Amino acid sequence: MFKVNDNYLKLPGSYLFSTIGKKVKAYQEAHPDKEIIRLGIGDVTQPLAPAIIEALHKAVDEMGKAETFHGYAPDLGYEFLRNAIAKNDYADRGCRIEADEIFVSDGAKCDSGNIQEIFSIDNKIAVCDPVYPVYVDTNVMAGRTGVYDPASETWSDVIYMPCTAENDFVPELPRETPDLIYLCFPNNPTGSAITKDQLQVWVDYANRVGAVIIYDAAYEAYISEENVPHSIYECEGARTCAIELKSFSKNAGFTGTRLGYTVVPKDLKSGDVMLHSLWARRHGTKYNGAPYIVQRAGEAVYSPEGKEQLKKQVAYYMNNARVIKEGLQEAGYTVAGGVNAPYIWLKTPEKMTSWEFFDYLLEKANVVGTPGSGFGPSGEGYFRLTAFGSYENTVAALERIKKL
Amino acid sequence: MFKVNDNYLKLPGSYLFSTIGKKVKAYQEAHPDKEIIRLGIGDVTQPLAPAIIEALHKAVDEMGKAETFHGYAPDLGYEFLRNAIAKNDYADRGCRIEADEIFVSDGAKCDSGNIQEIFSIDNKIAVCDPVYPVYVDTNVMAGRTGVYDPASETWSDVIYMPCTAENDFVPELPRETPDLIYLCFPNNPTGSAITKDQLQVWVDYANRVGAVIIYDAAYEAYISEENVPHSIYECEGARTCAIELKSFSKNAGFTGTRLGYTVVPKDLKSGDVMLHSLWARRHGTKYNGAPYIVQRAGEAVYSPEGKEQLKKQVAYYMNNARVIKEGLQEAGYTVAGGVNAPYIWLKTPEKMTSWEFFDYLLEKANVVGTPGSGFGPSGEGYFRLTAFGSYENTVAALERIKKL
Repeated sequence: MFKVNDNYLKLPGSYLFSTIGKKVKAYQEAHPDKEIIRLGIGDVTQPLAPAIIEALHKAVDEMGKAETFHGYAPDLGYEFLRNAIAKNDYADRGCRIEADEIFVSDGAKCDSGNIQEIFSIDNKIAVCDPVYPVYVDTNVMAGRTGVYDPASETWSDVIYMPCTAENDFVPELPRETPDLIYLCFPNNPTGSAITKDQLQVWVDYANRVGAVIIYDAAYEAYISEENVPHSIYECEGARTCAIELKSFSKNAGFTGTRLGYTVVPKDLKSGDVMLHSLWARRHGTKYNGAPYIVQRAGEAVYSPEGKEQLKKQVAYYMNNARVIKEGLQEAGYTVAGGVNAPYIWLKTPEKMTSWEFFDYLLEKANVVGTPGSGFGPSGEGYFRLTAFGSYENTVAALERIKKL
Repeated sequence: MFKVNDNYLKLPGSYLFSTIGKKVKAYQEAHPDKEIIRLGIGDVTQPLAPAIIEALHKAVDEMGKAETFHGYAPDLGYEFLRNAIAKNDYADRGCRIEADEIFVSDGAKCDSGNIQEIFSIDNKIAVCDPVYPVYVDTNVMAGRTGVYDPASETWSDVIYMPCTAENDFVPELPRETPDLIYLCFPNNPTGSAITKDQLQVWVDYANRVGAVIIYDAAYEAYISEENVPHSIYECEGARTCAIELKSFSKNAGFTGTRLGYTVVPKDLKSGDVMLHSLWARRHGTKYNGAPYIVQRAGEAVYSPEGKEQLKKQVAYYMNNARVIKEGLQEAGYTVAGGVNAPYIWLKTPEKMTSWEFFDYLLEKANVVGTPGSGFGPSGEGYFRLTAFGSYENTVAALERIKKL
């Protein structure tokens, strides 16, 4: 008689954004006349840039002719894309990452969920708190997190590193030594950044204790300050302790187009075993490559026209971030983020819980945000708004919030 | 100090098709003048059909305008595609499968590798032998297969069900009771089919012993005979014991476009737990949907024009299958498959091993096939050729083989 993976049954409730989706849907059905503005889920709204659209059309045409048709892609991704990534995202920033250390995928969510698979089930993870739910949830599903305590909303075998106003949303080194450390900077959900010196401390620590940092750099394109690193490989020694995840979702609007990549340096080893070989094995056995047309679209992100167009797109969203941040401050809220990231992290007013504020904002202003507590216990009393709406909607949402 | 997933280290050698790729590359480099014909990996060569190209262009245009831009897709896939699948692949064949039991993905390889995750690590798998390597390899990576015996090339905790000329390549019910049964019909690699009556025996057996059948129907479009089922849900009782995997790779040439789906009926339960809920949770947590433009391409597969064009494409490949089968028979080989599947499975001549015949064919005829032993111990002494080449190449390859 077959049995299910019991670890799945330990997961409390459903995935955060599914819950929000259901709540919003129920509210909309009960109030069909209300115009809801969504600044909740981190989904972009601007169309794909013209250079990307052009590359897509061209690749589609290629797929329609026998001479230029493309079947299975190379396991790690097409060289034209891996070379563009290696040059633009690494070499040009003085980081030593070779094209064959880059694994092209269908997005950073999948990679951030799958990467734990190449590690032992006995490894202990450390996560920022609050944090993108996928890191912890996928470790729960693998059976790596111990027992859930509903009162504290924490797992017995997870090291939580609180990120609150008290430490400016940058975690301190944990007291207990972890094996895997998930870091995401610029941060989702708090919108905070880490300086190069601060990140170097983590790299040195990981090398010292023999931990691996899984560095999620999905929001790198939003960095506006000089001393904030765009890649963990800007830090010395990162090649022996860090895996980096990158997404095309936020810098190029690929949330519905799906493209990302993971860097596993060949110097990252456990004894004689290269993690690079393990991830290559996973990629080759359980994955079949990103679509050719999407990889061509990814290449266009690095073309001169693509770069220029996407700079404007990022600026558009960051202008929204400014509107949100200033609007909230004007309305008397305590606010963080929004400078190097498209997320604004606000303290809920009058000791409301995060979900109470979610309901309040949905019902009174018809604005959807994300409850901070959905990202972890230290997110309680906080709330996330995203800059990914249209400018018009963002302005309208803030007008509504200011009137509350 | 972090540790790796030791199960990965148990995997012998590298993924079959990577090994073949390396061997062919080495031969080509040593003999740059030789024109190699590839009838090895199951990759298609015909371009995407015009109806699909048109749908792709249209969807790309939508992605370029704010009003019609699409961000994150719904977790399970777009309704337009799930409805088309439910109608065409199930309702029209008299199978009761609802649209919300269909999970759209980026391909059957990923799904067939990931599906084991929702089951207990203690479950015992049964596989046909020979078999598509992904089923066993992904269970090895999960730690479900016990110890590898290099002499017999088998795992201690896997139930192998030999499929050889003796049983016409359809397995007998296993003596030891499995929890998960992987079946693939029309079969890769043997090209054999199963009749509806034969498959009903498996469904009844699975329901009786409490096993789940993971039914890989990737080659369904190639069925030409009347009594061969296109879906396991044509059998009575399959809703309580079977998961079905489908691919767009072989019926529509999506190997480089990436689209597939998995059906998990809501009646399939372990106690109160629906496997549907577990797979939905995995999909929602570790996956982020297939690209919008690719899902629109998938929809076009079911349009009247798409159906007509793809019928011709399948007929084109099946004509190749006929050329291979008849050519080999003419050359004195013993051959199976090629009637309901694009694979031809031949007995190697003069007691050559599968890899010996691989080298022989590569060196003497410059034709690449796949060694049967790469699919499992009972594949030793067999060899697979695929009908996915161009007609011209297929004819040329057979001319070379006949001259040997």
